[in-house]
Formats: sequence, structure tokens, C-alpha cells
Amino acid sequence: MAGRGSASAPDAAVTIRDVARAAGVSAMSVSRVVNGKPGVGPETAARIENAIQALGFRPNRMATSLRQKRGLSLLGMVVPDPYTPMFTEIAVAADAALREHGLIVVTASSGRDPVRERALVGSFIDRGLDGLLLVSEDDDHRYLAPELQRGRPVVFVGGPPVGVEAPAILVDNRGGARTAVEHLLGRGHRRIAIIASTTGFPAAERLAGYRQTLAAHGVPVDPALVMRVPHGRVDGARATARLVDRADPPTAIFCTNYLLTAGALPALRERGSGCAFVAFDDFEAATLAEPPVTVVTQDPPSMGRLAAELVVAAIDGTGGGPERVTVPARLIPRGSGELPPPA
Amino acid sequence: MAGRGSASAPDAAVTIRDVARAAGVSAMSVSRVVNGKPGVGPETAARIENAIQALGFRPNRMATSLRQKRGLSLLGMVVPDPYTPMFTEIAVAADAALREHGLIVVTASSGRDPVRERALVGSFIDRGLDGLLLVSEDDDHRYLAPELQRGRPVVFVGGPPVGVEAPAILVDNRGGARTAVEHLLGRGHRRIAIIASTTGFPAAERLAGYRQTLAAHGVPVDPALVMRVPHGRVDGARATARLVDRADPPTAIFCTNYLLTAGALPALRERGSGCAFVAFDDFEAATLAEPPVTVVTQDPPSMGRLAAELVVAAIDGTGGGPERVTVPARLIPRGSGELPPPA
Repeated sequence: MAGRGSASAPDAAVTIRDVARAAGVSAMSVSRVVNGKPGVGPETAARIENAIQALGFRPNRMATSLRQKRGLSLLGMVVPDPYTPMFTEIAVAADAALREHGLIVVTASSGRDPVRERALVGSFIDRGLDGLLLVSEDDDHRYLAPELQRGRPVVFVGGPPVGVEAPAILVDNRGGARTAVEHLLGRGHRRIAIIASTTGFPAAERLAGYRQTLAAHGVPVDPALVMRVPHGRVDGARATARLVDRADPPTAIFCTNYLLTAGALPALRERGSGCAFVAFDDFEAATLAEPPVTVVTQDPPSMGRLAAELVVAAIDGTGGGPERVTVPARLIPRGSGELPPPA
Repeated sequence: MAGRGSASAPDAAVTIRDVARAAGVSAMSVSRVVNGKPGVGPETAARIENAIQALGFRPNRMATSLRQKRGLSLLGMVVPDPYTPMFTEIAVAADAALREHGLIVVTASSGRDPVRERALVGSFIDRGLDGLLLVSEDDDHRYLAPELQRGRPVVFVGGPPVGVEAPAILVDNRGGARTAVEHLLGRGHRRIAIIASTTGFPAAERLAGYRQTLAAHGVPVDPALVMRVPHGRVDGARATARLVDRADPPTAIFCTNYLLTAGALPALRERGSGCAFVAFDDFEAATLAEPPVTVVTQDPPSMGRLAAELVVAAIDGTGGGPERVTVPARLIPRGSGELPPPA
């Protein structure tokens, strides 16, 4: 398969996304037309076909072989843990979007262990899986360079590729943190704690967003309210207990991921704490808790759908390129984040 | 690979589980010794080696090839949906138990669609995955007969193989339903509704357990309180609304799976209903809800660990055989199931 970028032959450098841009449609629509699938109106299809001819776009061989393969093709998705609902939602949305392409998403957990993550990616590649979705907190992905050069579709989700260029669906972690902290500031809170993992790009970004936002509002950061802990339920529970049991407890907690939240909420409940609480990442139980949990959500359905589009672009086009799409995070007020500070 | 049972050569009929029984240890311990892994004390190891010699046990070729393969081997797990926490817990427990054997569990959802399930199993087999864990609600598994005859490790979990013989980890669905219904009867409830899926072996068994238990206690079944609905959150919500909004509502609901429960609880909450509630299958949010949710749980960690043992037995032994292990279900009272009927 041809490489990406300007070193390739001129027509090989044209990707399905170039066609999509020229025709003013999504890459998925172009893929539908290229693959003879239904769902694109005749006028749009004509516009896409004109763009294909004008740009000299040629679907690549991997796409052809994929279409000719019998049965379902498998797309391997590596997630950091099997519990975080956001990863499941991304997988479900990607799977739904890829179904018409005969691709099915299979997932496995790296357990946030870079050694296991690389072994897992290696096993997926050895088994000839047709692409990879990588939710990775690793800080070095250069081991993937040969695979990317060979044109294997690899799309990063939720965290950026480090040391290699690959398409990625990213989240506005700092913006999401700012939204959460400003929401609490707006309710009159000044002693706002944060619980964040010691590892991973999203945790570092969310913590940076927390610090920036407090600074921008002239609220000093109390180091005693910044809890950096491992990425587990028990760690969320312990951090919450330590915060709430202080002589000068925070009046609000910003908890930066699902597993920490899953530990924090029972700890708050046990203590009968009236501490305000905003969680990063939505989860089904958020509406069942008392009070229901205010969250900042990354919109995993959009992330999954966009990841699927980039996978299809990487399969049908010429490598997909290092395109990055950042999905905004938004706040869903439900009750816990609207609790006022004690009078 | 040799077939299962008495038709095989005498020594080929000896399985790793025969060795385990003779030595009074688990199949996992025998596997550890056979594979030269640590974790078995010298006395136990000697007893296992004596049993191996006495019975003439020979590890099979698939096991040898598995050990010689570089990197991680993949075990494909098919689950009915990606949301039900029990399936995740089973996968996590199986994965943890299989890690020392160099196996990693990858999961994909059939969406309770038999066509997709078979295509998925076919794709796993085409990709040379080293075994299958199948949580299947299909009513015909004869398409797997050739694979089972070839000695491919296939272990059923939570539902029985139909039309073929294969090892299975099953649940005492009727016993679990009886436990739930007797718990509610013991709190004085007589109008006990059930919400069950229209499809799948577990739903049918749980419904049968409900009917049997009411009959055994001389409580007539009101057909209006038996809700059979599709297997989704929205269906659980609608069924709950219809029950609670009746002129003669039930005083208790037995909800027979996670997705129905995830829909039922917000519906109960919206209506401010004081209806008692017992769910089949535990879930993390059960402790966050108000009141916390009483559940009957199938002990997914044990199911995953046992499934892993059967997979290892099938890989190391001579096919695993049609062994069935039934895991009991037990009740965890948390509050919702202890609400009394209105005076």
C-alpha cells in the first residue's frame, strides 16, 4: 500500500477525506458510494463520483480485499479497563457505524499496563485483524510506526499518538475541566478539591484545566485538596474519605474519571456528606444516585462514530493521515453539582 | 486431536481433570505443573506428577503449540450485549485466571442476534483464536459440532449448549428466582410482578422459578403481573410504568435481568413508587440507588474462574468433555427488596 503524504505518487496521496471535502459530504458517504452500499441519494452520489474523478481518487487494495473477505472482519479495540462506561459507549457506537462495512469491534483491556497493551496490539496484528482502535494512556507509540507505514488502519481515541502520526479522536479535557470547575465556582464554592489519576494524558490535562480555571478566577489552589491517586475504585474511595474527614474539608469535589467516581460516591454516601460533586465521564448509574450526579461528558457516541469514519477513511483511502478531531465536553447538571456550600 | 470419551485410545481419554481428581487438586494446578509455571508447592507438584504417571496423561498438541506461540494468545468471548455488568465480570475473572497461561480474553457482542453470533464465532475461528467462551441465548449450536470434534476449546457460560456437547458453566436460574420470590413472600408480599425477556434460556427458567415458587406457596399467579418484553432498558421502563400505573398495582417487582432493571429503576423513581424490588444480576450502581437495590447474583467471578479452568482443561486435556458446573445464585439484601407492602 502507498505511504501517506507527499512522498507518494500524486494520485495515491488523495484520500477519501479529500473526496469528502470536495463533495461537501462525510467520509462515510464517500465510502458508501465507493463500496456500492445504499444510503446516499442520487444527487449526492453524483457529486461524490464527480469529486472522485476530478481528484483521481483510487480506493486501495486493502479495502478491496476487505470487501472480498467472507464473513465479518474484525476491528480490535484496546481499552484501558473493562469497566469505564465511556469505553463501552465508544465501542458500541463504532460497532454500529462499522456494521454496514462488515466490520465488527472486538475489545480487550490493557489494564493500563503498557507491556500488556503492546502485547495485545501485537496479537491483534498477528491475527490479521483489519484495524485497531486504541484508547491508550501509554506515552510512547513508536512501536506502531511500521504498522502505520504499511497502511494498517490505526485510530487513537481519547488520547493522542506519541512519537508517531496517526488519526485521533480527542477530547477537550482542559475545556471540560474548566466547565466543571466554573460550574462549582458559580454555585459559590471556593474550596474545590480534585481527585485525579497519577497516570495518563487525560488526568494530567484535566488537572491542568482545574488549576488554570481556579487561577483565572483568583482562587488559590490548596495543595491539600489536590488528590493524585492510582486509577481504581478503592483509590477514589480513599481519596474521598481523606478529603471529607479533614478538619477543613472541601465544599465541592471534581472527580476526574469513572473508576475514581465509582469509589468516591459510596464513600460520600457512607459519610452523609453534603459535598457538591461533579464527575468527568457520564455513566448510567449517575441518574440513580441520590442526589443524581452532575457530570461532564465527552459524548462517546460521537467519538465512536467519528472513530469509525476515520477507520473507514484509513481502510478506503491512503492511510487516513494524521487527522485529529477534538470532541467538546459538556456539562449535564443533575443535582450533585448544584449543591451549595454550607452557609 | 483425539475425540472425547471412550471411543478414544486409552491414554488419550485421560484428561487434565482426571489428573486433578486423582491428585486432589484443581485442573489449574495440574496445568501449572504441566506448563512449568510457578505457584504450586513442591509436595503438591510431586503428587500431581505421580498422578500424571499413574494415569498415563499426555498434554495434547494444541497445548504444546499454544505454549510455543510467541506473545499472547487470544480467547474470543461472545456476549449477548456489551452493557450487562455480569458479562464484564465473567470476562475479567476469566482473563485474570488465564493470564498466567498467556491467554487474553477479547470480547464482542452478538446483540442477541443468532445470525450475528454465528458470524462472529466464524470470524473468531477464521482468525485462529485459541478458544471460545460463549454466552449464548441461541437455541441451536449444532454449527459448532465440527469445531468441537476438532478439539477446539469452546466453553458455554450462563446458558447450555443446544444440540452439541460442550463444557458449560451454568447458573441455578430457577433456584435464584425461588430465592428472590420467597424473600418477597417472606416480607408479606402477595401481589408480586415479574418482568422477564421474551427470549433466552435464562429468562424462561427464571419465569418458571417464579411460577413454581408462587404455586408452592399457594399464591395464584395474576397474568396481568407477568410482563414479558424485549431485552432492553426501554422495555424495562415501559413494563414498570404499566405495572405501577395499574389500578391494582403489584406491591413488589422481580426484575429478571440487568438491562430491564436499568430501565425499571428510573421509572420507579419518577413515579415515587414504594414498590419493593429485587433484581436478578448484581451491578455496581445497585449500592448507589435509593433505596439500594436487593439482588440475586450469579457470582460472576466464580463463573469466570471456572470457565477459565474448563478452557485450560480443554486445551491441555482431550477436549474437556461435556462437563457442566452449576453455580448457585444467592440473594444480597440491600433495602429495595425489604420494603413491606402498604398496610
